[in-house]
Amino acid sequence: MKRNAFYAQSGGVTAVINASACGVIETARKHRKEIGKVYAGRNGIIGALLEDIIDTSAESKGAIAALKHTPGGAFGSARYKLKGLDVNLAEYERLIEVFRAHDIGYFFYNGGGDSMDTAHKVSEISRRLKFPITCIGIPKTVDNDLTVTDNCPGFGSVAKYVAVSTAEAGLDVASMARTSTRVFILEVMGRHAGWIAAAAGLADQIGARAPHIILFPEIPFAEEAFLARVKVCVERDEFCVVVVSEGLRLADGRFVAEAGTRDAFGHAQLGGVAATLAALVRSRLGFKYHYAIADYLQRSARHVASKTDVEQAYAVGKAAVELALAGENAVMPTIVRKSNAPYRWTIGKVPLRRVANREKMMPRNFITKDGFAITPSCRRYLEPLIRGEDYPPYRRGLPQYAALANRPVARRLAEGFVLK
Amino acid sequence: MKRNAFYAQSGGVTAVINASACGVIETARKHRKEIGKVYAGRNGIIGALLEDIIDTSAESKGAIAALKHTPGGAFGSARYKLKGLDVNLAEYERLIEVFRAHDIGYFFYNGGGDSMDTAHKVSEISRRLKFPITCIGIPKTVDNDLTVTDNCPGFGSVAKYVAVSTAEAGLDVASMARTSTRVFILEVMGRHAGWIAAAAGLADQIGARAPHIILFPEIPFAEEAFLARVKVCVERDEFCVVVVSEGLRLADGRFVAEAGTRDAFGHAQLGGVAATLAALVRSRLGFKYHYAIADYLQRSARHVASKTDVEQAYAVGKAAVELALAGENAVMPTIVRKSNAPYRWTIGKVPLRRVANREKMMPRNFITKDGFAITPSCRRYLEPLIRGEDYPPYRRGLPQYAALANRPVARRLAEGFVLK
Repeated sequence: MKRNAFYAQSGGVTAVINASACGVIETARKHRKEIGKVYAGRNGIIGALLEDIIDTSAESKGAIAALKHTPGGAFGSARYKLKGLDVNLAEYERLIEVFRAHDIGYFFYNGGGDSMDTAHKVSEISRRLKFPITCIGIPKTVDNDLTVTDNCPGFGSVAKYVAVSTAEAGLDVASMARTSTRVFILEVMGRHAGWIAAAAGLADQIGARAPHIILFPEIPFAEEAFLARVKVCVERDEFCVVVVSEGLRLADGRFVAEAGTRDAFGHAQLGGVAATLAALVRSRLGFKYHYAIADYLQRSARHVASKTDVEQAYAVGKAAVELALAGENAVMPTIVRKSNAPYRWTIGKVPLRRVANREKMMPRNFITKDGFAITPSCRRYLEPLIRGEDYPPYRRGLPQYAALANRPVARRLAEGFVLK
Repeated sequence: MKRNAFYAQSGGVTAVINASACGVIETARKHRKEIGKVYAGRNGIIGALLEDIIDTSAESKGAIAALKHTPGGAFGSARYKLKGLDVNLAEYERLIEVFRAHDIGYFFYNGGGDSMDTAHKVSEISRRLKFPITCIGIPKTVDNDLTVTDNCPGFGSVAKYVAVSTAEAGLDVASMARTSTRVFILEVMGRHAGWIAAAAGLADQIGARAPHIILFPEIPFAEEAFLARVKVCVERDEFCVVVVSEGLRLADGRFVAEAGTRDAFGHAQLGGVAATLAALVRSRLGFKYHYAIADYLQRSARHVASKTDVEQAYAVGKAAVELALAGENAVMPTIVRKSNAPYRWTIGKVPLRRVANREKMMPRNFITKDGFAITPSCRRYLEPLIRGEDYPPYRRGLPQYAALANRPVARRLAEGFVLK
């Protein structure tokens, strides 16, 4: 009994989330006997609630294949968390109405820890509201903070971007240090976990001497130790490259970048943590500085994506469909590391309840004792994840992305729905 | 009568200045009858003044070839401007001492408008101080603001980086806009000229809808018009991508980012112009925003360099040596555009005095009447400059750069020199 599938993207997007979409759609298309059409929610779960659904079967084979090298979320994402079944039953009843109206029997939800919570809640519909649906989560997060899975699709590419950018900027600052910039600060993402900042540590393998200092959200910021280290680096190498997680905190738990209208050091506050640290370096050490804030550039940088990451993103999309067809429910495919050298991995699975709403921090033994660098174990963990290049096709100097029609499916419900 | 050559890098470095170094060294090595060794100044002209000189003849053919894909300045650069011959004769006398001690008959100086001034002043040594030396400038600047030459090596790659990054971030923000970020601001370099910001305008050719607004240093910032435009874009597209030159100014000439401790709008000031605009958008329109500051990442981004740019950077280095051997003096090779479609260019030359200390702003007809976008003529000018990809070799996920020994030449002068 063939039923349709619903796929949606959730939370912050990545350079490779569309590769997972590609994995889902291409694999479903190979199982036309079991799966009808693949519908996509416009703006994630909101598309389901509002019955704003895209028919991916209208897209050509080539357009779907091009998703593999297209950053962003091709169907739109959403930051929208379903409340519990007991709190907002209306949302679940609405989902069932929409799923029933469009004969949806498979729910594929592509996101991070919060999204796995949503997927888990939707999976409860089957049991508690007696609407049969197969729910599979698909891991995605640049933050690399999902539990159980060895790593998260999306992370490898941002890690590669950060490592490459740190190496390049390191060479730049090294050239300028004699008469100009001494301290360069790169602010990267990672509100709670320092995985992205850690990836910058790979840059020193290629002779750039950078980064000299990494500041992790897991390690409370120690102003004096930091300044002393900057000074030592500038004295030794003429320059100092600092990579800092946006989520850097003081010992009392406040974010360095958000501790009041004035920052934690009493300076007026507008920018993020990079601006705060730069002002500190300037006022206390007098060094000329520059800083960069990578922000969305880092997570959308498909032009320098990790091939490993693209392959894994595709693989978890494909595995999600295969797990559904194998009768699994309320699970998420995981990436299982089999060995470091040579790097080998395979796909596993985990119940959604075990990954929902959890976060995986950097283990303390991945950070050096002084708190400013990564250890050899961390390096061994990170290094395979940035391996390989997978360039998008270019035309006249610019990448060519998937151009989807995103054709809406005709609405079948008389009633709309108001998001709370 | 064979004499040695001195090559130095000056000012802010680029992703391809080492390609020019490669062009100089490889070409000089082909003319061993006329040119002895190629020496490089450690940290630009300072290396000459301090007799801190690198012997590039100690480098293997492979190491020199690898300069072509290595960002930063391989021998160190400097922000150091020679004063006039009449003001600081001691500097020129010192240069002559060093040049004489090392039998230097060719001076190749790789930089922007200020550096062409230095090269021009050094060229006066021949005539006014009777020390025979051939001085050739080699154009380099990400700002693209040298006069006479159609474009400047270094610009094409930063232009490609900015166009690609804008397209990628545009796709990201488009996915998030429904429930999260509405306005994304990317701050790029360009203190006086808007060429780099203009390059972002190419991104809209690939369906990203971004950028919606470009803010040029040539166009005084009009707060109300800007806010009105942001509002229109968000209403129409759900989101708005703004690309802003760091050098954006108010009508009274003050930089938007530096107009007092409080910014021009009365907000506390720490960050650059992106932070200022973001705070303005938030306070006046209430939209959630993100901003990125590309800073050094943009000018060192060799991983996404323009092939055209790499070729031109190499070509001006090669041409500098050939001009010197042809008996030219006090000139700079230029890039001459022969046609747009197909794009054809050749190498010309210009006397240094015609490019020293001058800046080429964006022509007004390259910016739309409303001041927020680029015109078709601008597009025709920019588009060929970002064409082609020229990836560095990678190993284990990271680019492999030139590893130079940078062997110092033994000092021959008893006296040191104190920089003023």
